[in-house]
Amino acid sequence: MLSGGVGGAKLVEGFYNILNKTRLNVICNTGDDLELFGLYISPDLDTVMYTLAGLVDEEKGWGVRDDTFRCLKALSEFYKKESWFNIGDCDLATHIFRTELLTKGYSLTEATRILCENLGLDRVNLQPMSDDPVRTMVMVDSGVYLSFQEYFVKRKCRDPVLNVIYKGSDEAKPGGHVLESIARADIIIISPSNPIASIGPILSVKGIREQLKKADCIRVAVTPIIQGAPLKGPADKFMAGLGFEVSALGVAEYYKGLADVFILDERDAYLKNKIEELGYKVHVTDTVMNSLKDKIRLSRFILKAVGLKES
Amino acid sequence: MLSGGVGGAKLVEGFYNILNKTRLNVICNTGDDLELFGLYISPDLDTVMYTLAGLVDEEKGWGVRDDTFRCLKALSEFYKKESWFNIGDCDLATHIFRTELLTKGYSLTEATRILCENLGLDRVNLQPMSDDPVRTMVMVDSGVYLSFQEYFVKRKCRDPVLNVIYKGSDEAKPGGHVLESIARADIIIISPSNPIASIGPILSVKGIREQLKKADCIRVAVTPIIQGAPLKGPADKFMAGLGFEVSALGVAEYYKGLADVFILDERDAYLKNKIEELGYKVHVTDTVMNSLKDKIRLSRFILKAVGLKES
Repeated sequence: MLSGGVGGAKLVEGFYNILNKTRLNVICNTGDDLELFGLYISPDLDTVMYTLAGLVDEEKGWGVRDDTFRCLKALSEFYKKESWFNIGDCDLATHIFRTELLTKGYSLTEATRILCENLGLDRVNLQPMSDDPVRTMVMVDSGVYLSFQEYFVKRKCRDPVLNVIYKGSDEAKPGGHVLESIARADIIIISPSNPIASIGPILSVKGIREQLKKADCIRVAVTPIIQGAPLKGPADKFMAGLGFEVSALGVAEYYKGLADVFILDERDAYLKNKIEELGYKVHVTDTVMNSLKDKIRLSRFILKAVGLKES
Repeated sequence: MLSGGVGGAKLVEGFYNILNKTRLNVICNTGDDLELFGLYISPDLDTVMYTLAGLVDEEKGWGVRDDTFRCLKALSEFYKKESWFNIGDCDLATHIFRTELLTKGYSLTEATRILCENLGLDRVNLQPMSDDPVRTMVMVDSGVYLSFQEYFVKRKCRDPVLNVIYKGSDEAKPGGHVLESIARADIIIISPSNPIASIGPILSVKGIREQLKKADCIRVAVTPIIQGAPLKGPADKFMAGLGFEVSALGVAEYYKGLADVFILDERDAYLKNKIEELGYKVHVTDTVMNSLKDKIRLSRFILKAVGLKES
């Protein structure tokens, strides 16, 4: 699975709960990562981890449920301008632990594995797309770029998206087991995350797009856009900003050549033919995931649609 | 003033509250400093800072009042064995901020100044005894050494103190303004801290003891031992372990040559002659400081005893 944060993590949770013997590899976006207060923060890796560990604050979609923000409040006294990024007291422990591991010389891939082990996540191989820094930068004015978190959290998505670049992606190498995971997969699923801000950074890492293109297995993309809008987050602004139609069709165009099967929401069934014309095999279902039951249902639907059995 | 944590900080607070124009320099013990979770922690500097800023948890004597321990609890899941050192969520902000400053290349002296400024402490020059690592190590068995915090917090002072060494003190240089502060002082006060575990490390830094010996000003030592016992902490075990009498007389012997005036508690008035025989001018008063009023009273008593005016 390729995944970003909230939306993608929901489908990952679905598969995590139905697969037993099958190895679940998740290649996760790190284009949103940031350093704050000297700590290395990886929001999408954390959201996937917290979701699978049952710790996530489901209402917010990020962070740890029932977390408090006492340290952040004290930090904001020291770092006047930098307290816009929300870090709860429990969440902070993850960043402190990960930062120490990185400082000791562990790669982000290794640090993620250790974090997952500590959280009891033994049935998933969660991997950063790269151990090297790739930063999703949003151009909001001619030549003016914001980091994704600045655009998203600090500025609350209020700026126009004129362009998006993935800084560092030319030099970044895929994470430790990323290419191998893709090459050995029976099925590749592009989770319903923001195509440009969450999946785009993964595809930008040299070698990953190529490996996906030549992957000789079932390749599925799940739409994150329903009835012309994302369920959460600014995917619409990113797609429109980069000239894609804000619809499942726009998503299908974006993933052309990387997936053969497209999971379309039943509310958008009228787009089926147009997406099929792009070369996809299209399956239509309810893709909204509110409960764990929904997540499991969608996961089972996908497996059945492509003719794979749970194992 | 030379100071360690709790006891010393009380007298520092007294002087901080009566001095206006006079520059208060505090040279603080860093022999208890430790690195935990990748964070640099300086317990005595923090206790003095928090005390002067009115933030200290007075009941415990350390940390921030009404602090919570949520991040520590989460950290203890990652760091199984290392959660014996108590760090509150608000306290943690200090360690995170200081660690980032040190990582960026600031010295501990500079980081302390910035922390004090941020806490609004503009009438004190709080300085670490050294920017280099000096570690107070407690020998608890033949050849077996514990760091001070391991001895004090983790092992709760239950081991015998056979010897104490100040690791690194041969190579450590005095902190940025330490020797200058001593040389220019009108009065030097050794606060009522643990002589061996709090003041001893300061004296062990090459050059500090010599500068104190030749200081041409009023030099005062305040007893931390009353009626044969410290008010708080394990000073008795350290003094006995190193062959000093656990009494104000033992303290006076330990500071011989470094102070000319000795502030003796009224409960130990019977020791006055013996301490005078060591060459001290002795003043007797109530040295117990429970309230701010007590701290101010003792500070004023000292100034009056040596013939200095508040300013």
